[in-house]
Amino acid sequence: MNEMTALAGRYRYTPGTGVRDYPTSVNLFQRPKEVLRDRVSTLGKLQQKLYAEHRNSLLLVFQGMDAAGKDSTIKHVTSGVNSQGFMVYNFRQPTYKDIEHSYLWRYWRAMPERGRIGIFNRSHYEEVLVVRVRPEILEARRLAQKKFDDRFWRNRFQEIRALERHLGENGTKVVKFYLNLSKDEQKRRLQRRLEDPEKYWKFDPSDIEERTLWDAYLHVYQDAISATHTEDAPWYLVPADDKGTMRAIVASIIASELTALDPQFPEPTAEQLAKINWAKEQLAAETD
Amino acid sequence: MNEMTALAGRYRYTPGTGVRDYPTSVNLFQRPKEVLRDRVSTLGKLQQKLYAEHRNSLLLVFQGMDAAGKDSTIKHVTSGVNSQGFMVYNFRQPTYKDIEHSYLWRYWRAMPERGRIGIFNRSHYEEVLVVRVRPEILEARRLAQKKFDDRFWRNRFQEIRALERHLGENGTKVVKFYLNLSKDEQKRRLQRRLEDPEKYWKFDPSDIEERTLWDAYLHVYQDAISATHTEDAPWYLVPADDKGTMRAIVASIIASELTALDPQFPEPTAEQLAKINWAKEQLAAETD
Repeated sequence: MNEMTALAGRYRYTPGTGVRDYPTSVNLFQRPKEVLRDRVSTLGKLQQKLYAEHRNSLLLVFQGMDAAGKDSTIKHVTSGVNSQGFMVYNFRQPTYKDIEHSYLWRYWRAMPERGRIGIFNRSHYEEVLVVRVRPEILEARRLAQKKFDDRFWRNRFQEIRALERHLGENGTKVVKFYLNLSKDEQKRRLQRRLEDPEKYWKFDPSDIEERTLWDAYLHVYQDAISATHTEDAPWYLVPADDKGTMRAIVASIIASELTALDPQFPEPTAEQLAKINWAKEQLAAETD
Repeated sequence: MNEMTALAGRYRYTPGTGVRDYPTSVNLFQRPKEVLRDRVSTLGKLQQKLYAEHRNSLLLVFQGMDAAGKDSTIKHVTSGVNSQGFMVYNFRQPTYKDIEHSYLWRYWRAMPERGRIGIFNRSHYEEVLVVRVRPEILEARRLAQKKFDDRFWRNRFQEIRALERHLGENGTKVVKFYLNLSKDEQKRRLQRRLEDPEKYWKFDPSDIEERTLWDAYLHVYQDAISATHTEDAPWYLVPADDKGTMRAIVASIIASELTALDPQFPEPTAEQLAKINWAKEQLAAETD
């Protein structure tokens, strides 16, 4: 447990630092797959208690550049955990119905219920990331605000902090991951995708355009992370150049956060114990 | 593949037969865990193609008596499949908002999107099962119909067939499982739950009451299965007394049904190929 917490601490955002201060590549484990398997097994046990207790929930937010490994990390850290204990939401382009509401509306609808782990593959953070790099998206949305200036973004940061604080107060622990990929490794991954006909369907020409905006994205990530990291809803910047290591680190952080929530199987009340005894007697007395 | 289809055929409902004609216990595999692992791996590959093709979807319905193993079967057959490829819905008691609508409304809202596998842990079939054994539930719902006679249930069966036919026509293959547990094995499982303090929270005194209605439930299951089994939306009655064997059979049936859907990675169009080549050139020409 201490080992997990220490590991989590290494990648937890420290106020005042920049995204570029965190490594994109580390050599941590001799056998990252074994670490992953071990952490996933811990997670599975904790998740069962979380579900049994039915009091708190966990919201995991995954952000990162294209090809940072969000999908496959989610796949690996949830594999082996009861699929009924979590819900994964992929946030793509909003629908016309989504944008008829405030920008937080569609995320609210996906919040995890008590006892569950909610996973956001992309999240409300896109509302201060992609739309900030590409303000033309916002211009098409007929928002109440017409100027997308510093005040506008500061307001959004404040609103997101308020949302996450509200969630925390009411039992949903929020944990946010930035999968920290280097520009070189992104290039290699995009090139590999373009060589594999079974992956053609995943290819989107806009990935190449977005890549030319790398520095702009890094800047808005920096701003968003520093403005929304709090003690209760922390950001973790996880080195993403090696997928195996990344998965093991992410699973360790989730296990450490869930351990801190300390879920417990609920103690039966005297009334429940009486009913359990009654049920035992009923079954024992059956004659057919 | 032929082996899987043959196995599926053995547990597929045959019109004219009764639930009691199907075994609750079989000795099929030397190593059921290996069969399960093999099938889950097949499933994972097919699911990726289903998702890539983005044309069809699969809806898996799980029904069975209390303690038949619905939860753990769902857990095992989905473990290792990408969690973003499916959505599990547990249908418990309807909310007051659900019952303000027609009895199919809440199930409609949970239908799988194109390319996904939807899993219903209990389903619209509860609307012709538990409420038929306990008509007082319906009486409290202020339905348009006031008499719950044969005509009422025949109408519901017809409506469910029409719904599933509509789903099939529009790309959602429906496959229904009845996890076929014996009354003796249910007794052993309920007793085991009552001996394990970590499982007390799962205990519901109504499980014991429901058990006394075993024959009534078997009767309504029989009626529902025979009235709603179709070529396109079949029922499978899977022996449930041995959990390992059941999981291997269920995974085989899903793999066989998904194989029949024959999902394919989409062929890129000439335009897409041109964009792929453009992207390769862009990346190769980068100077920084």
